This record gives sequence, C-alpha cells and structure tokens, in this order.
Amino acid sequence: MESVLFQPLVDALASGQSQAITDAATLFNAADLAEFIEQNLDNETGRSLFQNLPMSLRAKVLGFTTSSTQLELTEETPLGELALLTAEMPSDDRVDFFNLLEEPRQKQLIRKLNEEDRKDLTALLAYPEGTAGALMSTDYAVFESGITAGEAIDILRKTAEDKETIYQSYVVDKEGTLIGVVSLRRLIIAKPDTVVDSLLATGLVSTHTDTAQDDVARLITKYDLLALPVLDDNNHLTGIITYDDAMDVIEEEATEDIHKGGSVSKLDTGIATAPPFSLYRSRIQWLVILVFANIFTGAGIAHFEDIIGAHLALLFFMPLLVASAGNAGAQSATLVIRGIATGEVVNRDWLRLFNKELLVASALGLTMAITVWAVGIFRAEVAIATTVAVTMIAVVLAGGLIGILLPLLLNRLGVDPASASIPLITTIADVSGVLIYFSIATVILGT
Amino acid sequence: MESVLFQPLVDALASGQSQAITDAATLFNAADLAEFIEQNLDNETGRSLFQNLPMSLRAKVLGFTTSSTQLELTEETPLGELALLTAEMPSDDRVDFFNLLEEPRQKQLIRKLNEEDRKDLTALLAYPEGTAGALMSTDYAVFESGITAGEAIDILRKTAEDKETIYQSYVVDKEGTLIGVVSLRRLIIAKPDTVVDSLLATGLVSTHTDTAQDDVARLITKYDLLALPVLDDNNHLTGIITYDDAMDVIEEEATEDIHKGGSVSKLDTGIATAPPFSLYRSRIQWLVILVFANIFTGAGIAHFEDIIGAHLALLFFMPLLVASAGNAGAQSATLVIRGIATGEVVNRDWLRLFNKELLVASALGLTMAITVWAVGIFRAEVAIATTVAVTMIAVVLAGGLIGILLPLLLNRLGVDPASASIPLITTIADVSGVLIYFSIATVILGT
Repeated sequence: MESVLFQPLVDALASGQSQAITDAATLFNAADLAEFIEQNLDNETGRSLFQNLPMSLRAKVLGFTTSSTQLELTEETPLGELALLTAEMPSDDRVDFFNLLEEPRQKQLIRKLNEEDRKDLTALLAYPEGTAGALMSTDYAVFESGITAGEAIDILRKTAEDKETIYQSYVVDKEGTLIGVVSLRRLIIAKPDTVVDSLLATGLVSTHTDTAQDDVARLITKYDLLALPVLDDNNHLTGIITYDDAMDVIEEEATEDIHKGGSVSKLDTGIATAPPFSLYRSRIQWLVILVFANIFTGAGIAHFEDIIGAHLALLFFMPLLVASAGNAGAQSATLVIRGIATGEVVNRDWLRLFNKELLVASALGLTMAITVWAVGIFRAEVAIATTVAVTMIAVVLAGGLIGILLPLLLNRLGVDPASASIPLITTIADVSGVLIYFSIATVILGT
Repeated sequence: MESVLFQPLVDALASGQSQAITDAATLFNAADLAEFIEQNLDNETGRSLFQNLPMSLRAKVLGFTTSSTQLELTEETPLGELALLTAEMPSDDRVDFFNLLEEPRQKQLIRKLNEEDRKDLTALLAYPEGTAGALMSTDYAVFESGITAGEAIDILRKTAEDKETIYQSYVVDKEGTLIGVVSLRRLIIAKPDTVVDSLLATGLVSTHTDTAQDDVARLITKYDLLALPVLDDNNHLTGIITYDDAMDVIEEEATEDIHKGGSVSKLDTGIATAPPFSLYRSRIQWLVILVFANIFTGAGIAHFEDIIGAHLALLFFMPLLVASAGNAGAQSATLVIRGIATGEVVNRDWLRLFNKELLVASALGLTMAITVWAVGIFRAEVAIATTVAVTMIAVVLAGGLIGILLPLLLNRLGVDPASASIPLITTIADVSGVLIYFSIATVILGT
C-alpha cells in the first residue's frame, strides 16, 4: 500500500494557524487523519490537529483510533466539550468510548448529555461485551408499514445525516415488530406510489441482542449483508450492525484464534501496543501449564532410564520422533479448530474426519519412516534404524488422531476448542511419542 | 445461529412439480438456497432445486457455493444454457467460474457469449490470481464529470439492475481518468441541479489492478469502504471491489495464516472438504523439513552424551526445558507475525520490540524458574534443581528473543514471515534450549 502524503497537513501544523490547519484537514479522509494523529501523539502535533477539527469530524476521527488514543486525546477535554463530542458520535462508538472512561468521569458526562442520548447510551450499556447488543447502532432508518416509496425517500433525505446507513431501511408494524428490509436501490427504482411493503427483500435475516459477535459476523458474511437488524425479546427492532463492524469482528476473532494457536491468552491489542505486564499475563499462564504437562514427558523418559542407559544412541532420535508426533498433532488440530471456527466442521463429521486422518496420517507416517530410516542407518545400527522407522509411523498416526479427536471432543463438551491451545495438544502428542518410542525400543532391542 | 427452516422447500421438492418448487424457492435467500443445495447434492434434490430456479437466481445462488459445487451443478448443463447462466453472473463471479472449467469447455463457452461479455471476460482473465484485477467487478456505476445529481439518479435508476452497487458511483473525465467518488446518500440529499463534481467524497481512495488482495482488503477495512475503485496503468477506472469480497479475502487470509502457524502449507479448502491427497501434500513438506531441523536437536543431545550418562536425572527435565524454550519462541513469534499481518508491527519497531521482549521474557523466565526449582528439589539433588532453574531463565529469554527477531528478519528480507511457520521457530528455539541446558549443566555439575 502506498503511504498517504501528509505534507500539506505538516506545513499547516508548522504554521500554527488554526484556520490553515482546519483547511488542510479537509483534504483528508477521517481514517487518514486518525493515522496521522496516532503517529504524532508524542510530539503534540497530533493533539493540535485533533483540537482544530470541527466537532463532528473529531467524533468521526476518534472512531478510527485505538482505545488508548481515544483516552489520550480526551483526558484533558473539559466536560462540556466532551459532552458535545460524545453527542456527535454514532451510538455504537459512543458506548464503546464511554466504557473506556473512569467511573467518576462517566457519571459527570452522562449528566451533561441530552435526554435522548442519555437514554440511548444507558440502554446500550446494558448489553454484555461481545454480544450483538453491545455491537449494534441505534441510528437506523425505519418506516412504518404502508407508506409509499416516494414518502420513504423523502424521510431518508431529511434524516440521512443521523443514520448509520440509509441503504437498508427497516419496515415495522405499529408495535415495532420487524416486518422486513427494503434497500434504497429498490426504493429509487420503484414508482413513487408503490407501497414499501411490496418492495421488501426475500428471506428476512435478523439476529437477537444476545447473539455472540462472531455469529453476527458469520451471518453478515454468509448473506453478504450491508447491515443486520437486531431484535429484542419481543421481536422489536432495537438496532443494526453494519458490515464494517463485522469486518472488525472477523479481524479481531482471527487475531484471537491465531494468538491462542501460539498459546497466548486474551490480549486486547497487539504486541507493539500492549503494555509489558499485559504481555506477561497473557503468556505466563500457558507456559506454566505446559511445563507441568511436560513433566509427564520427563516422567515417561525417566521410566525408560534402563533402556536409554543401555542404548544412548536412542536419545539422538528422540527429538525428531517426539517433534514429529507433536507436529502431526498440531497440523490436524489446526485444521480441525479452524474448520470449527469457520463452520466448515461440525461434530457429526467426527467419524469421517477420523477415517480421513487415518488414511492421511498413515501416508505421512510412511513417508517420514522412509526418511528417518535413511538417516538412521547412517548414524546407528540397523536395529535402531528399524526401531526409529517403526516408531515414526506409530507416532505420526497417534499425533494426527489426537489432533483430530481432542478439539472435536472439547467442542462436543461445549468448550471453545481454540482455548485448549495447539501447544497443549502438541504436548499430549509429545508424551505419547515418548511412551511409544521407548516401548517399541524395549520390544525390538530388549532391555 | 438458528437453522433456516427448509420444510416448504422439502415438501415442494417431494411433490416433484416444477411450479411448486419455483414458488417455494422465492421464500428463501440466495445464500440459503445455496446451503440447501450443498447439503442435498448427493440425493439429487439439490440438483433438482437448482434446475427449477429462474436463470438469474441460478447465477446468484452459484455465487454462494464452493467451486466444487459449482462444477458439480453445471457439468451436465448444455452449452447454450451454460452461456445464458454465465451471462447472468456478476463479472467477478463469471471469471472465477470460467477458471474452474476445463480448457475445451472454456473455448466452447466463450464463443457462445455476446461480444460485450466476451470482451469483459477476456480482459478480466488476464489478471493473475490474488490481485485486485482478478478480484474486481466491471459492473460499476460511472458518470462523466459535469452532470447534475438529478441526472445521476436517473441514470442509476435505469441501470441499477446490472450494477454490483449503486451506492457508490464514480466520476471520470472524458479520458476515463477517475476524478472522485459520489455516494447515493449525497446524491439524494443534494438539490437535483447540483453538479456531481461538488458532491465528491474527500480523500479519494483507490488501488491498482496489480495490488495484492490482502492489501485490497486492508484498504477497504481501514477506510470502511463499501467499494474500492481499481485503476489501470493509465489511472483509468477499470473496476471496483466491494466490501463483501473483502470480507471473503480477510477470512481466506486468516485461514491461511492459521494453517501456516500449524505448519500446514497452502490448502484451497478446509479439512472437511479437501481430498486426502491435498491434505497429505499440504502437510508432508513441513513435517520432513522439521525432521531434519530436529536432527540438530538430536546432534546437540548426542554431543553431551557424557554428562547425560553421568547424570541421567538431567533427562527428566529436558522435555520441559526444551518445550519452554519452544513455547516462549512460539508465543513471541505468533504475536510478531500477527502484528506484521495486520500492519501493527513494522520493521523499524525491531529495537523497541526486542527491548520489550527482554523485559517480558525475563519476567516469564523468572516465574518459570521458581516453578521448576520447586519441582526440581522434589525430584533431584539441589545442584540439578539449580541447574534447571538457571537454564529456565536462559532458555525462555533465548526462545522469546528468537521468536521476535526471526520473523522481523524474514520480513526485512522480503519473505512472508508466516511462511516460515511457527514450528520452525519452535524447533530452532528447541535446539538452543538443548545446547544451553547441557552447557550450563556441564559448568555447574562438571563432566
């Protein structure tokens, strides 16, 4: 991606003249202004640019910055100004921002809002994080059943400024129950006297305030929606979630799954922005758990001290056999866990996946066995090379099957399989690898 | 997510009456019809439903199915019917579908298309897979500079049927050079005699046909775009990429990164749908590479056979020390690689990240050292417990720093750091772990 050329902004900021800064800012996207501000938070020009933006643009720009930047930019803002800024925010951004503030400041701020915004904010605050309710915006376009396309367009024209989107509007009955969705595309194509009820899209897709955010994102992706309507317990329309929020959720969930795959627990930001203590906390838990898991591997080795003492050459092959078990397990676990996350794999597939893995892991094990046998006869006697080759088939098969079954079992038990972390599965495969190796060695080489 | 209730469709299909099937289908979304068809491909009702859909809906439904389903549904379609179906597809779906066909069928089909579609298809076929050109649609709404908002809306009204979106239109000069973007929101709010040039959005964001698809997706996410215009070498507008395609790319790239993290190479689909041989191929490469990498670990152990022979108790602690080095490395590598993928981490951050890791890994190592020392004095003499504790600090630090530096180095060299696979970094950390352990043991315990 090419970088945006910020020179006009830099020049204006150097001049120090408010009007020049405001003028230069009009040349840029809100997302670019946010980027410039984040890059220049330390040298005060970022803050100076922010202060010179009109209030509505400030609200828009804040929506493109990280939580910590939002806090930093507003920590010294007087309460009256903060209330004006908050009033300009889209309802979903507003609740996220409000949640960042310390409780005393929250209380002071909420008193300064007008009644409508205060009610809206209080209602949205009630939804737990990670649900559709917490993600949704209440700034949607809505019509009562029975109006015409022409009337609908007139309403949209007048209210567009305050709406998250006017490209999808929602038609409700007198009680507020959602009847259907009509697109602006259909409204402008239709004759002006057509009743909107006859223009509704087929197959209404909606969700409930309690739905988890990854399910929301999956619905939006599956149906290619611009916006998804959210209903309360009485099937009344209470909000919408737009595609751009779904994209953020997809990115966020992917980051979380990738982190879990590397045994990093929940971390709100990335490595560059997270404070050292957050990084420590997100990593220590799994490291300690895995140390204890590896005590079993150590105990496995200790159990076979006699055969190891008698054939120290066995040790040379231990890392590659144990690692192969672990790697085969990591591979199949990764594939199954991702399949579960994207909805490709469901529990009832388990037998089919098990059989497929039996086939694939056998082929993998056989290829690997040939490879290590060739390495083996260079380094050690034929008996050891044979032990190693036979072990390889067994451990790759064991690792592969553990990697398939464990995530499916966890999923069956209602535990998010990603939370078990690939390294734990790897470690379990490792232990099996050690036990299988020295058991086979004992049989082939005697004690 | 709740399941869609397909009963009306099942009943209509059971009746075998074409009209009843067509009528029942109108109750459902294209995405749901696609899902029903995929679930019922084996029992012929899927195919029967597809054949009973009107041609335009068939084209739409195909866009929601996987490549293999697309092929299966159309393999017996007569050429004339296939041409009609292809004509109804959006231009981006059409080129993807065309690429699935065998060459003889491609040649036959292209001759049956009308000139406009043939030209469009041929142009799009020229762009390499994974670029903006291959992803874009040519069905965009475009105006010449100078027309009014009223005229623009009239044009949109008449051409809407054939456009991918009418919510963003593109304004070009007489040569076709892109001047700006105007939203339908602004067009309907504006007075009808306003010239569109005065309604353009600030900060035009566009891309080039050569841009990689993950950069395209990142632009769309960064600016919350509905559609991104794509320019050719002469800055002429040649296509647009819509947000729904960007969402698919984000999912696809996340899957690829997650697979790489589990040392699974490029795989077009997931574990449930991929044929066994594809799974074998995507896994064997890394397994073999990692076997050879682990030979170094084995050689490291072999090098220290004397001290191991003298103190077999050292073996008990080897797995947990080596694994801790590897796990710490996997953690920091995962964080850095994800940071690079999302754009959070850039090369010039390396020293800051190194210093942060020095701090975090020291804290992690210290915590772990205390843990293993406590385990150690239960299992072995104090000298060995001390050796293990000291080693723990060193290996966690070494693993953590390797995990930070290696991905950054690869990125610097222009290699995608995700392609190095976390397990390779883990293995390198493992080798270091073995060497550090037995070196420290040699110093503390003597030989």
